[in-house]
Amino acid sequence: MQGFPPAPDKRVKAGDGSFFTFPALRYSVSHMRQFMPTVEVSRGIGSPEPLPQNLDAAIAELQFTPWNSQQPMSFADSLHKNYTDGILIMHKGEVVYENYFGALAKDKKHAAMSVTKSFTGTLAAILVAEGRLDPSKKVGEYVPELKDSAFGDATVRQVMDMTTGLKYSESYADPNAEVWEYSAAGNPLPKAADYTGPVGYFEYLMQVKKQGEHGDAFGYKTINSDALGWVISRVTGKSVADLLSDKIWRRIGMEQDAYYQVDELGVPFAGGGLSAGLRDMARLGELIRNQGQWLGEQIIPAAAVKDIQQGGDPANFAKAGYDKLTGWSYRNMWWVTHNDNGAFAARGVHGQTIYIDPTAEMVLVRFASHPVAANGANDPSSLPAYQAVADYLIKTTHD
Amino acid sequence: MQGFPPAPDKRVKAGDGSFFTFPALRYSVSHMRQFMPTVEVSRGIGSPEPLPQNLDAAIAELQFTPWNSQQPMSFADSLHKNYTDGILIMHKGEVVYENYFGALAKDKKHAAMSVTKSFTGTLAAILVAEGRLDPSKKVGEYVPELKDSAFGDATVRQVMDMTTGLKYSESYADPNAEVWEYSAAGNPLPKAADYTGPVGYFEYLMQVKKQGEHGDAFGYKTINSDALGWVISRVTGKSVADLLSDKIWRRIGMEQDAYYQVDELGVPFAGGGLSAGLRDMARLGELIRNQGQWLGEQIIPAAAVKDIQQGGDPANFAKAGYDKLTGWSYRNMWWVTHNDNGAFAARGVHGQTIYIDPTAEMVLVRFASHPVAANGANDPSSLPAYQAVADYLIKTTHD
Repeated sequence: MQGFPPAPDKRVKAGDGSFFTFPALRYSVSHMRQFMPTVEVSRGIGSPEPLPQNLDAAIAELQFTPWNSQQPMSFADSLHKNYTDGILIMHKGEVVYENYFGALAKDKKHAAMSVTKSFTGTLAAILVAEGRLDPSKKVGEYVPELKDSAFGDATVRQVMDMTTGLKYSESYADPNAEVWEYSAAGNPLPKAADYTGPVGYFEYLMQVKKQGEHGDAFGYKTINSDALGWVISRVTGKSVADLLSDKIWRRIGMEQDAYYQVDELGVPFAGGGLSAGLRDMARLGELIRNQGQWLGEQIIPAAAVKDIQQGGDPANFAKAGYDKLTGWSYRNMWWVTHNDNGAFAARGVHGQTIYIDPTAEMVLVRFASHPVAANGANDPSSLPAYQAVADYLIKTTHD
Repeated sequence: MQGFPPAPDKRVKAGDGSFFTFPALRYSVSHMRQFMPTVEVSRGIGSPEPLPQNLDAAIAELQFTPWNSQQPMSFADSLHKNYTDGILIMHKGEVVYENYFGALAKDKKHAAMSVTKSFTGTLAAILVAEGRLDPSKKVGEYVPELKDSAFGDATVRQVMDMTTGLKYSESYADPNAEVWEYSAAGNPLPKAADYTGPVGYFEYLMQVKKQGEHGDAFGYKTINSDALGWVISRVTGKSVADLLSDKIWRRIGMEQDAYYQVDELGVPFAGGGLSAGLRDMARLGELIRNQGQWLGEQIIPAAAVKDIQQGGDPANFAKAGYDKLTGWSYRNMWWVTHNDNGAFAARGVHGQTIYIDPTAEMVLVRFASHPVAANGANDPSSLPAYQAVADYLIKTTHD
């Protein structure tokens, strides 16, 4: 997209297939609003809270061995390997590493993809901790429109942890997968004249069928996040965008507004539609690492963070068959490693993450545009790299 | 647009006719990004510069007589009469009046409509003052793609002052007016399969035909602003959005990012696509009132402001037949009143304005959603109201 206008072979348009495939992806993930309607997550109009800086040049040189290799790799090399657009590491509340590539910069925003789900789950966990949302209640009790859908007799907790039994395939490789019908419903562009499917996320959710039983197994399905978004909006009278602004974005000195892509009715895509600045993602990570405190003030309930951090049921998680994520669980739409350091993460396709290591007092945030959507493609040279940084930071005094 | 989802009779959708007519207009002008792709005008990530406050309750009670009436009206009443969404008045650099209605708030943004043109004109005037743009050169010399269009042999100055002779009608009431073809070209939504017209603003501009001679008369035609936007982008290598950010938005402590609606190629609508916060519009007004200085620093060349303020040729302007705007002129896409106070203004349909009165040391900014697009509908109870405030401020010492 360079030039005025860009040359035909340099154009990226939402309407054609190039929009969300590599290499156009590298541009589009940093410019989502240019391709679709969006709503704002306001930071308010006050002054941002500066992020203290204490850069450590040694981090780039740290060596680790990727899972799928015998060859050691440097942390700096892993960034290129994984098509990193931006990465920032905080240690004990200070920025120790920060770097930008691709079409991203310090003062720009990037698609968070399914990291968005962790925000939705966190909002729900906050409402639970505040006593405004009862996780043992059925979704149909909060949203009567969902009573006859698969969500109707699922508990809010089952939706929050994605242990619902839903007839819904998110396999992008399968042209008959339900995810395509879902995408069509959520697409904010005007529907074709012969379109007869549901319009908007909510209408789609109303007709989801049950498959299996709720509560049996973890099954990663985006529509749980949007159903949870609907519950949240019904309980609070606010869209997830406005609630995220009120609960978090206005309260921890964010530098930039964030935004959500929306459907035709203006409903934010709670399952994956957020774009934000990388440094603001780091602020969010620090808020979580500090048990909901920011500069000594309790911004979100500590109980909500504790409930995220303790994780879900690894046995339930194991049934989903992530062979590289042995022993992990999923709770409140966060991924919990249950490793020695108690690390947990928000994760989105193409390499987006907020990775929090409480033992190392580390928050690592990364935006990326890996050509392969599934994180299985970048985890082998990402997760051990994060571990190497954590190991280093534990031994290091930054002062 | 209240409720999750909004009830069918409360929905506002870009695809249908309700989007930009009253009463939906009241919502949509404060939520433009929800209906279309946009690009950002970044303020950067630093701290905003606070606007000093010195509110004066007497302003609301000021009386004036509308042009079309014998009955005096209060300033406060004029705001309702004109469907004001937000209004802010600065006197000697301090906020003396500020109020929000409709769907707008202090920390939200609103469509600036053709006030956008004045930003485009200001950017061009800056480039002229910097010696980077020669207003006596032909547009075709800067943008060869426009050589065979009506713009090809127009000077940059003629485009900046809208004295070009163009076969182009902006009469929205006429279904055959060129403005409809222009809107279709600029519409970022995918074109219908049978669409054969130009795609994007630039492609439209390339096929505009000449009508009459350049330089003879002022003729208010939006496409001049977009042609100027193209010249600006070609000269600087930046979109008007990025240039506005670099030249102004990042440099005078703006509170919010602004944004432009874009066409399918991501080209910002330089003729009317800007949305911004009202308080940031006031900062821009103050920058202009202070001859391009902000807190003692020269942000934009004083020569650019002087050239705006001195106005164009009233004789040329008179030929356009604005019977209520006697003696005015148009220069660098600003409206210059040539009244005793030397007031000049940026103006957009439905009541948008930045009104600068140098003698009264006043900057008045207003966003509105008047059901009638043409400012002729609200000028009779707006311009004399502004004059009443100016008269009052001249006699008042705020300290």
